[in-house]
Amino acid sequence: TPRAAHTDHSLIFADLTPEEYHKVRDYMWERKDMMISRSPLAAANETFIFLIDLALPKKAAALDYLDRKGAKPRREASVVVFHGAQGYIKEYTVGPLDGQLQHRDVTREKYKTDTLNINSRPVTIGEYAQIFSFLDRAVFQKVEKILKESFNYGKENKLNPFEGMPRGVKSGDRRTWISFFRDMSGMYIHPVGFEVLINHESANQSKWSVEKVMYNGQYFDTIEEFRDKYDANQIKKIVHEKLDNYASLKPRSAPTGVGPQQFYPQGQRFSVKNNQVVYLHWTFAFGLSSLTGMRVFDVRFRGERIAYELSVQEAMSVYGSVTPGMMLTKFLDSSIGIGRFAHELVRGVDCPYAATYVDTYRYIDTAAVQRFRKSVCVFEHDTGRPLRRHFSDFFHNKYGGVANSALVFRTITAIGNYDYMWDFIFYQSGSVEARVHATGYISSSFKVDGSLKYGHQVAKNTLGNIHTHFLNFKVDLDVLGVKNVFQTKDMTYVDVPLPWMPERRAKIPQLVENQLKTEQEAALRYGTTIPRYLHVASNKTNRWGHQRSYRLQVISFSGDHLPETEPEEKSMSWARYKVAITKHKDSEQTSSSLYSQNDMWSPMVDFSKFIEDNESIENEDLVAWVTAGFLHIPHAEDIPNTVTVGNGGGVILRPHNYFDEDPSILSPDGVYFEPG
Amino acid sequence: TPRAAHTDHSLIFADLTPEEYHKVRDYMWERKDMMISRSPLAAANETFIFLIDLALPKKAAALDYLDRKGAKPRREASVVVFHGAQGYIKEYTVGPLDGQLQHRDVTREKYKTDTLNINSRPVTIGEYAQIFSFLDRAVFQKVEKILKESFNYGKENKLNPFEGMPRGVKSGDRRTWISFFRDMSGMYIHPVGFEVLINHESANQSKWSVEKVMYNGQYFDTIEEFRDKYDANQIKKIVHEKLDNYASLKPRSAPTGVGPQQFYPQGQRFSVKNNQVVYLHWTFAFGLSSLTGMRVFDVRFRGERIAYELSVQEAMSVYGSVTPGMMLTKFLDSSIGIGRFAHELVRGVDCPYAATYVDTYRYIDTAAVQRFRKSVCVFEHDTGRPLRRHFSDFFHNKYGGVANSALVFRTITAIGNYDYMWDFIFYQSGSVEARVHATGYISSSFKVDGSLKYGHQVAKNTLGNIHTHFLNFKVDLDVLGVKNVFQTKDMTYVDVPLPWMPERRAKIPQLVENQLKTEQEAALRYGTTIPRYLHVASNKTNRWGHQRSYRLQVISFSGDHLPETEPEEKSMSWARYKVAITKHKDSEQTSSSLYSQNDMWSPMVDFSKFIEDNESIENEDLVAWVTAGFLHIPHAEDIPNTVTVGNGGGVILRPHNYFDEDPSILSPDGVYFEPG
Ligand SMILES: [Ca+2]
Ligand SMILES: [Ca+2]
Ligand SMILES: [Ca+2]
Ligand SMILES: [Ca+2]
Ligand SMILES: [Cu+2]
Ligand SMILES: [Cu+2]
Repeated sequence: TPRAAHTDHSLIFADLTPEEYHKVRDYMWERKDMMISRSPLAAANETFIFLIDLALPKKAAALDYLDRKGAKPRREASVVVFHGAQGYIKEYTVGPLDGQLQHRDVTREKYKTDTLNINSRPVTIGEYAQIFSFLDRAVFQKVEKILKESFNYGKENKLNPFEGMPRGVKSGDRRTWISFFRDMSGMYIHPVGFEVLINHESANQSKWSVEKVMYNGQYFDTIEEFRDKYDANQIKKIVHEKLDNYASLKPRSAPTGVGPQQFYPQGQRFSVKNNQVVYLHWTFAFGLSSLTGMRVFDVRFRGERIAYELSVQEAMSVYGSVTPGMMLTKFLDSSIGIGRFAHELVRGVDCPYAATYVDTYRYIDTAAVQRFRKSVCVFEHDTGRPLRRHFSDFFHNKYGGVANSALVFRTITAIGNYDYMWDFIFYQSGSVEARVHATGYISSSFKVDGSLKYGHQVAKNTLGNIHTHFLNFKVDLDVLGVKNVFQTKDMTYVDVPLPWMPERRAKIPQLVENQLKTEQEAALRYGTTIPRYLHVASNKTNRWGHQRSYRLQVISFSGDHLPETEPEEKSMSWARYKVAITKHKDSEQTSSSLYSQNDMWSPMVDFSKFIEDNESIENEDLVAWVTAGFLHIPHAEDIPNTVTVGNGGGVILRPHNYFDEDPSILSPDGVYFEPG
Repeated sequence: TPRAAHTDHSLIFADLTPEEYHKVRDYMWERKDMMISRSPLAAANETFIFLIDLALPKKAAALDYLDRKGAKPRREASVVVFHGAQGYIKEYTVGPLDGQLQHRDVTREKYKTDTLNINSRPVTIGEYAQIFSFLDRAVFQKVEKILKESFNYGKENKLNPFEGMPRGVKSGDRRTWISFFRDMSGMYIHPVGFEVLINHESANQSKWSVEKVMYNGQYFDTIEEFRDKYDANQIKKIVHEKLDNYASLKPRSAPTGVGPQQFYPQGQRFSVKNNQVVYLHWTFAFGLSSLTGMRVFDVRFRGERIAYELSVQEAMSVYGSVTPGMMLTKFLDSSIGIGRFAHELVRGVDCPYAATYVDTYRYIDTAAVQRFRKSVCVFEHDTGRPLRRHFSDFFHNKYGGVANSALVFRTITAIGNYDYMWDFIFYQSGSVEARVHATGYISSSFKVDGSLKYGHQVAKNTLGNIHTHFLNFKVDLDVLGVKNVFQTKDMTYVDVPLPWMPERRAKIPQLVENQLKTEQEAALRYGTTIPRYLHVASNKTNRWGHQRSYRLQVISFSGDHLPETEPEEKSMSWARYKVAITKHKDSEQTSSSLYSQNDMWSPMVDFSKFIEDNESIENEDLVAWVTAGFLHIPHAEDIPNTVTVGNGGGVILRPHNYFDEDPSILSPDGVYFEPG
């Protein structure tokens, strides 16, 4: 039996139910003045509800409810509407969900502007349908013979598109390089060497155009120029060769027996009720934002709140390439939707067989609610090593130890080629780990002259492009309430005389402690010397007189962040910092935004602005924004899929003088013996 | 059934059998001229066999045997003799173990000197017995009343000693600060505030002396001065107070049910025969050196040798303190014996229940062979996450994945207070991880004025002293034979024009590759900018034309290394480098030595000398020496024991263009499905 008990309090953080999504959608559809299309394939010049998601309660209201028996915060939805007819985007708050709905335009409140640039919207399924038909008409039909000769293109053997991002070089641009890939499973590592730049800026599809063509490293201004030169044999041709599908994930060995499996011999020690998990002395609420992905709230250990929020914020990659499809590519996944792609988890591979699986529901880009079966898993796992142990063979022969069984809360999001596995792990020692591993297909380019500056060849004619992975987490620790300070600790060697031999000196490690006073002091840039211990601390002390704190231990192998001189950098300015501390604001809910990917040059959220006002962070409600990542130089072993071993990063939140002693001494898993 | 088959080849790396140890010991005992004492408590002025261990075969001979059906290398023992009567140490090679034994003095061959300084020897059990009786006579009996009043000292309530190291400030010194701790389990965190400096340099115990006394932060030249001033009430006294044992590992909660357990539903997929492990496509030999700890040899994946040797070398810590017991303390565990303290592993905590446990035998400091039951464990573990997986929801709806089950080879060594858990982990993707986690008791000091500069208070009057952990591994990768090069790879942003828009430029990540030519170029110091990817590579290429390599990915949170200006630093010069590459030499078997701890000032092995000759490392047999570690600022949660979460480091050896694709595609654990 779990030690902590379930409550209904977590429901204030729960994702919308199918009924709530439909209620909001139908309410909006009924706003006649908005003229919202009900088609899931609404065109760019129509008005469309792109997203309905939970509008998080204001923190003060939530704490009032959770801690002071205050009123339950009003439950509301956040609605994103693409007003295609008007040529702008607006956001609305709709609520109360349990009452008579009303809507309120919150665009100015959130973004300090009345409307958002329509071309900063993500490409909808409707627009993709238009792009595909445009490609068919403006590209495939015009060069069918070439595509047949080069790639064996035909009715049964299409080419699939993969888009470079951002879509241009300046605000308002919607000019996308599309690379073509063989129509095989794992297409992402089957580039054919044919890329086109299409301009789909206009809401009127008839104004779209092909602006450039790249074929086998050669550039053409029009499809016609490409066709004519090809026909005139003026270009270096690609001649189709039959190829086995090296991208296939089909196992090549027969199963020889199942590997080790975990089970719960005395039953499950955690329980999931609604959106609340209880595990031994842990409790937390959870949710899955369509945009930013998984998140937990009101994380408590032994009844005390450790964190108000721990959430995924963004997954970003910057690519290198000599060919245009990947050359400028900088992916900002939360603009595409991280949570959106949390699909069903496979028992026994994605999570252990014995895990508990939870369905989630989303409303994004479909005009209807979608159910994602088993898209979250929760399980207790024996890590296979002790949490702690000691055996004495001097003076006292005793043994004490505890196995390291921990609770894992997981989603896996497969956004196109790449799969990120997101774990929040809750340990019996009071630590919480946020961890991400990468797997799935790398992105690739057709190999041409000069390609090898940008990666390694990983398959026939295929370059695995060098790229960075940067992952951002929001860590809103509340250490004994919301009034906290940010401390750093480290060591330094100090030359001191030996007290028993004062003529002799030695260099001895000393503790160096600092309290950082402002947001800018506490914005700790990668590439600079960062103190080794970072703490969110209370001014309250533990039994031994030390400030109670949680330490942030970041695990990262990140590459270089995009230089700030690049105009796209401000859309990803959070990645400058290993850890940055801000004063909490409800208006600074996320470090990135839905609109960043398609308007990297004037992003609606530029994280660096959060710290520009350089507020005091002493005795304030602090939020730590943590960036981890790794440099990925693809190699042959990324085929067919990148493995998780060594490919990830994260942060461990560790109690540091928070308690008076290690709380795992109270674990029911303790083992102890001494000579009888 | 495992895919690879067992052979007898691994036996050349096997530890000595009990019979072999005895045969060598008895042979040495019979050398009348040496006059070796047979007492396990031999005194300092007697001659004593301290250590018998396997003399590793020369690499060339081993490879000749393993790869070219050459003769089996001669099996020999290495014997360390403390010639107390003569006042020096010598090392002998004794063999052949399967024939008529002969011995050979190898001191000069190994150390370029005919004899080793007798005071560089570790303190034997015999000497400890002498120290304890000396303390009783020269300390306890003289101040019994004080000790009673201060610490409730008595027959039933002794004080236990804990030694600072090194034992002095210059070569030849054997002057040890001994701190006293309550006689409770977990004494390491029960300092009483009483420390004495004893001089035990002389082989003649009657010449030993107490050179200094520290009591509650006050210093005295003699025990008598201390006693007189105490009696005259001229000093700040400690008054005994009764104390619960906060160091106890006794669980404080009743068990509520066993946590998750792992089992092998279709049987074990690995097997251990003699000193050889076979797991799916992996095979390796293993052994446990009394000094350096666990090691594996001839590590092969799919029949191809990846590494000749992967071994623990050293565990070092530098402490800070205001009181003398810990002030100069710098532990070099291999001088005490890392493997020596590999004790029995507890099923279900130290390793999973279902693990295979192996007994080991050692001969160190006891005049007899000791059996260590179940001191190695081997198990396959489901890490609880996929090794790789991908789900496509565009174009092709397919799923493929493999659970990440890996083989773990483990020992746990408890050297006094601290327990290191050493893991070598073998993955189905061809990676090997060497990983260490720390747990057990921290070292502590009695809190006096000025203590808080050196750590945090963690219990009543108890300071957890700041310290570093540095762990050194030897990684003798052989990538397609012994002729290898050392490569680095990293990224840089390069400003290039856009090919389709040449007036516009952008900064694009490019790959930067380098081949380092000499040992000094390839000695990569902590605190400097180190390329992100480090590779031991062959000049042979994979299918895609890239040099086949293994990458070393180091995971470390290490503190600052002792400044090189400190005279003790040369005994730990390996810790300067995250990775250092040397040309393999049989004579450079270890980065540290048995004699380093007690003669840090003139160490018999100074790693930095390995690279002083700055040999070429191009197309040579390369060895990578890898240092990982972490800075430890003890906090209340280190009581009673440090937890493993976040406290460790290691290195992952990852194939990088070694194969033509990820070998886990051949795993029998592959799972795949597509719409029917
Ligand atoms: Ca601010
Ligand atoms: Ca906070
Ligand atoms: Ca050398
Ligand atoms: Ca080698
Ligand atoms: Cu990647
Ligand atoms: Cu430590």
